[in-house]
Amino acid sequence: MSDTGTEAAQAAHATQTIRRSPLHDFLAPDSIAIIGASTDPTKRGYKAMVGLIKGNYGGKVYPINPKVPEILGVPTFATLDDVPGPVDLALICTPAATLPGLMAECGRKGVKGAVILASGFRETGAEGARLEQQVLEAARAGGVRIIGPNTSGMFNLHKQVNLLDLRNVKPGDIGFISQSGNMLLALVLEAEHNGHVGFSTYVGPGNQTDIGFNDYLRYLGEDEHTRVATLYVEGFRDGQRFLEVAREITPLKPVVVYKSGATEMGKKAASSHTGALAGSYAMTVDLLRQVGVTVVRYSDRILPVAEGLALLQQARGKRVAVIADGGGQATITSDRLSEAGLELAELSAATRKRLAAILLPQASLVNPVDVAGSSDANPEVLAQCMEIVADDDNVDAVFLVGMFGGYHTRFAESLLGGEMRAAESMIELARRVDKPLVIYSLYAPVKPPALRRLHEAGLPVYASIEHAVRVLEALGERGIYLAHQHGQPLHASATPREDMQAMFARAQNEGRDLYEFEAKALLRAHGVAVAEDVVAHSADELAAAVARFGERPLAMKVVSKDILHKSDAGGVKLNLVGESALRVAFDQIMSSCRAYDPNADIRGVLVTPMAPKGTEVIIGVVRDPIFGPVLMVGLGGIFVEILEDVAFRAIPLSRFDAESMVEQLKGRKILAGVRGEPPIDKPALVELLLTVSGIVRAYPQLSELDLNPVIAYPDGHAVVDARIITNRAVMSA
Amino acid sequence: MSDTGTEAAQAAHATQTIRRSPLHDFLAPDSIAIIGASTDPTKRGYKAMVGLIKGNYGGKVYPINPKVPEILGVPTFATLDDVPGPVDLALICTPAATLPGLMAECGRKGVKGAVILASGFRETGAEGARLEQQVLEAARAGGVRIIGPNTSGMFNLHKQVNLLDLRNVKPGDIGFISQSGNMLLALVLEAEHNGHVGFSTYVGPGNQTDIGFNDYLRYLGEDEHTRVATLYVEGFRDGQRFLEVAREITPLKPVVVYKSGATEMGKKAASSHTGALAGSYAMTVDLLRQVGVTVVRYSDRILPVAEGLALLQQARGKRVAVIADGGGQATITSDRLSEAGLELAELSAATRKRLAAILLPQASLVNPVDVAGSSDANPEVLAQCMEIVADDDNVDAVFLVGMFGGYHTRFAESLLGGEMRAAESMIELARRVDKPLVIYSLYAPVKPPALRRLHEAGLPVYASIEHAVRVLEALGERGIYLAHQHGQPLHASATPREDMQAMFARAQNEGRDLYEFEAKALLRAHGVAVAEDVVAHSADELAAAVARFGERPLAMKVVSKDILHKSDAGGVKLNLVGESALRVAFDQIMSSCRAYDPNADIRGVLVTPMAPKGTEVIIGVVRDPIFGPVLMVGLGGIFVEILEDVAFRAIPLSRFDAESMVEQLKGRKILAGVRGEPPIDKPALVELLLTVSGIVRAYPQLSELDLNPVIAYPDGHAVVDARIITNRAVMSA
Repeated sequence: MSDTGTEAAQAAHATQTIRRSPLHDFLAPDSIAIIGASTDPTKRGYKAMVGLIKGNYGGKVYPINPKVPEILGVPTFATLDDVPGPVDLALICTPAATLPGLMAECGRKGVKGAVILASGFRETGAEGARLEQQVLEAARAGGVRIIGPNTSGMFNLHKQVNLLDLRNVKPGDIGFISQSGNMLLALVLEAEHNGHVGFSTYVGPGNQTDIGFNDYLRYLGEDEHTRVATLYVEGFRDGQRFLEVAREITPLKPVVVYKSGATEMGKKAASSHTGALAGSYAMTVDLLRQVGVTVVRYSDRILPVAEGLALLQQARGKRVAVIADGGGQATITSDRLSEAGLELAELSAATRKRLAAILLPQASLVNPVDVAGSSDANPEVLAQCMEIVADDDNVDAVFLVGMFGGYHTRFAESLLGGEMRAAESMIELARRVDKPLVIYSLYAPVKPPALRRLHEAGLPVYASIEHAVRVLEALGERGIYLAHQHGQPLHASATPREDMQAMFARAQNEGRDLYEFEAKALLRAHGVAVAEDVVAHSADELAAAVARFGERPLAMKVVSKDILHKSDAGGVKLNLVGESALRVAFDQIMSSCRAYDPNADIRGVLVTPMAPKGTEVIIGVVRDPIFGPVLMVGLGGIFVEILEDVAFRAIPLSRFDAESMVEQLKGRKILAGVRGEPPIDKPALVELLLTVSGIVRAYPQLSELDLNPVIAYPDGHAVVDARIITNRAVMSA
Repeated sequence: MSDTGTEAAQAAHATQTIRRSPLHDFLAPDSIAIIGASTDPTKRGYKAMVGLIKGNYGGKVYPINPKVPEILGVPTFATLDDVPGPVDLALICTPAATLPGLMAECGRKGVKGAVILASGFRETGAEGARLEQQVLEAARAGGVRIIGPNTSGMFNLHKQVNLLDLRNVKPGDIGFISQSGNMLLALVLEAEHNGHVGFSTYVGPGNQTDIGFNDYLRYLGEDEHTRVATLYVEGFRDGQRFLEVAREITPLKPVVVYKSGATEMGKKAASSHTGALAGSYAMTVDLLRQVGVTVVRYSDRILPVAEGLALLQQARGKRVAVIADGGGQATITSDRLSEAGLELAELSAATRKRLAAILLPQASLVNPVDVAGSSDANPEVLAQCMEIVADDDNVDAVFLVGMFGGYHTRFAESLLGGEMRAAESMIELARRVDKPLVIYSLYAPVKPPALRRLHEAGLPVYASIEHAVRVLEALGERGIYLAHQHGQPLHASATPREDMQAMFARAQNEGRDLYEFEAKALLRAHGVAVAEDVVAHSADELAAAVARFGERPLAMKVVSKDILHKSDAGGVKLNLVGESALRVAFDQIMSSCRAYDPNADIRGVLVTPMAPKGTEVIIGVVRDPIFGPVLMVGLGGIFVEILEDVAFRAIPLSRFDAESMVEQLKGRKILAGVRGEPPIDKPALVELLLTVSGIVRAYPQLSELDLNPVIAYPDGHAVVDARIITNRAVMSA
């Protein structure tokens, strides 16, 4: 269990330092008006009344209905203006068309927030979008914040506010923001069926017209009743802001995100490799993890993972000690831990000696520890084993696997006492050590007494090894994030250079992207090692290249704003030695490119020494419409093109980000050197990523960047091709 | 639902054509002796008595115990010999040391099968293994078959035989063989908690001393009460035989296998690339799927998948129509279907028109169909939608996703009638169409009336989209297997050639593997296109190579039985043109190889034309100690070395096997041609795989084979290197 006192103290501290979210004013309201309150039991305007009254809401309830004098014994008002006191929150159950007028009314009344259930807005087309904009403007004019429209509603169970007609929702630690009302229902039923923890606040953000995920996240981060912020997201509207808020919240409390659209790839016509891969689910996952968010891939893992993060200590790392009372499940556990990137902790000799002292000779003392019958007559042995391995410095988390809780039905009734004593020992151990105890029991579905006791004491028991392993993974990742990633300084912006600003301005004035030699000049200006190059506007200028580079083999590439795919146009010649070879190549390039595009504006060719062979890396940047500037790295060739083996980070990067994105690649074995080849210069690659991050911050005129390939060597690297797409909308100073 | 009548008829037919398993005689026994029957309630010799008597076993029970006159009212016998009638099955609860004697006793009595609970055999070391061998010999001498030893026992609920002390196990359709007793317990509790189908026969195979997985599988295949054979396997003893039996059983009924050790890689020191990758979990999965087995990767999917296969129609393919009553879950469903390799069926115009006629305008008629509120007031709309899409020829399976079953609690009590009518329509539809109806409901955990009705009628309802998708995947794979793979002729053995037999004999006499030129000769002898080569034993013989190959660039490789890694030894020279270049290369190879291994027996060099560039493929064969001869294919380079992107099939292969193993590779995009390159000649590659399969069958002297690389072209391919390891134990004719 996490130390609630400390977390609460941290949260209190956070509340002081972070600007307090205005959402508290109406998500924990002291007075609620129900506009469109109804006496029809099938209507939301009736169900919300039931939810508030049966839920023992302590604040004021004002049903607005001009036709009936009272609803469920509560006197109604004809209009909002008639309500005598202040109104924190309005639940609006009337159709879309009424909303602009009602927003003005709410503004007059000083209503702080409005939940708009109606659909018929942006999601229906252009006319609905116009109406939605009107509603937003009316709300802004009156200072009213909007939840929705097109939302399933909200509840705040610790304030007894329940505007949904959901029964049997247990108050608890999980704050949930979900774009699917069905997903809320599914989790509530699952929590009820499996005895999970309950919920604090739920909000359906609907169209996010005004309040978006980032605002709700800040609210949940500050909410004292929420121990884990859990989000079901179909789409972010302001992803960049969400990342900023998440970076602030995740150190204070865990944030769990399920993002739907896992297999959806970016659909826009891509003008670069990076553009083709950006916008993907994989990118979203990388960016969320960069700021400490736990991303859950399958919807049936949302609740177990959120519960584990809410109730258990984070782990300091990924080394798990397994205590099992059966070989089969020990093997399954090893498989799943390994797949999840977790490790079986190597137990110290002292630990093994202590285990040997209490276990039968046939027990396996090597992790996974299989007690092999040692606990059959005395289940307390399991708790003792957990205590012993928890004391081992090589262990970051303890995982109990097997039949605990069912010993008294499986072996002998008389074992119940031992099971209850073992449960108490586990509870005390969890309070004492700063490592998580994760428990899987095959008896979890039937909730025997010892497991009920653990649950009541705040130790979750999982009915699936797979789910328990996901919890261990999330606890380990969170611990590693907090220890290594959180708080790392973000790489500063480069200082923009006047000559480079002028270069961008020229390109923008000419309505074009940067030429390759300009892109390389920008990199060179900011300290990136780029080979020298010479631009020859005519064949006669090739002599200068020969004079500069001598007998080194050279590459020649066409310079034209109109030719994007130089190789396809026959605009690239390689391994040229001597002036006559250059002249032949020049003529070939000119004629090929003219044939390829007779109207192309061809400025000449770029001549540069060939780079030696090495490992091809691709580095890219896009400005994602949702998440802002994003950097991508991958290995060249099939790794990017066939396997889509790339890693993303939002800009700016920390050094940890740059290092971890390289380590994340499946092809990292290649970078580390295969078949006896030396490893590439990873520190130099990391430096290059950070430099690119700094350049992108310094030049808003830069829209996309592709360094493809960068050839990495055991000592440094060469940027062989560079492409920078300008942002025509951002003019240079 | 599958048509039970037809399946039963098929099973009956199978029973006639397949030799009837001898296991029926004692897994469905008419008389049981309990050796070591006890009055101590904690002992298995007591619990089994309780299981039989409380379970209303209809046959004879003979407790063997010389010390008490009766147990639970059943008269005891001092020894087995004292039992008056025949004994089909003996449950033996006494320690390991008593077993050799008891086996002799069982033999005298004519006991057909014995369940040996005791441990202390092979699993404890050499002494235990000797004892186990003694027990086996005694049993064989007396004609007694052995379950175990070191087993958790067995039950056959349709015969009321329950030798375990498990309560609340519902009789049903799932036959289960599990090397982990805990896994049985876990599934029984899960089935009880979630209301799944029950079990027919369970056996713990223990050490598989006598009876192995293949025998149990045949029994379950023939057992009329088992509709799905489900196996939890830690290790096969005779995998090759298991594959043979599975090939016979899977057409008759589904077989589900969970194999533990998913992340365990082959541990033997590998003498070839293929050797290094064989023996892996991935290989086991490929071989099991080759014979129609459904492999389940996570243990919490065993029960849902087994239940779905037991109760539902197989699908004809992978095209799924989704009917959802909420956009969020429709999106999740699309993600999961796509990840599982399933497709969203493209609904016909007629289908969309029929849907439009019953749905609201805002409904999405493109699969996934989102009814968008159309069913809120009338849940029968869901059943109507299912019927409409089930009629579409483009649809192989129907998947209902959402709140069905909970409409009367979610919207209005009055909807219960509509839900019950919808359930009846679904049941009728399932009986009428030969496509599976798979149902996910977020209300499944609370078992509302309509879902209970579906369950009772044999239509499972899943509480997890993820699990339901796994069921759809399994049903689709099974349908495709039966339609395309099952019954395909297996590629015949090649006819062994005398000269090749003699070549093997020479190598074996010399205690060596085949030389590369011999391996290539073997391939050439069986029709594989291998480039000509010349062996030069001295520099003076190089002239012959020049005479033969002229000015073509040549490769030269050392010929030595002692040099396995020719490149490492400096034993390979490439791109040689002209006799002087050959002579220089010859001298360099000789001196390098002598320096590498002064004692190497160097016979000369092999000279062969260089193959043009193309796509590198690797083909390998091993004789796996468990599964017998196995063929592997992969793409060369990083695909094999870094990504382990290979596919396996047991030899002999069908044409479908050869085709599907190529299609299974992640790198198949490369074979299909990337970046405008033409595709490789896949039919020729398939032919090569089949030829290799035939060669391996023809020559038992061949132990391992590595064709690395084969260079594939748009037209044919070139086998550039070939290595064949001889089996020194199999002498040639």
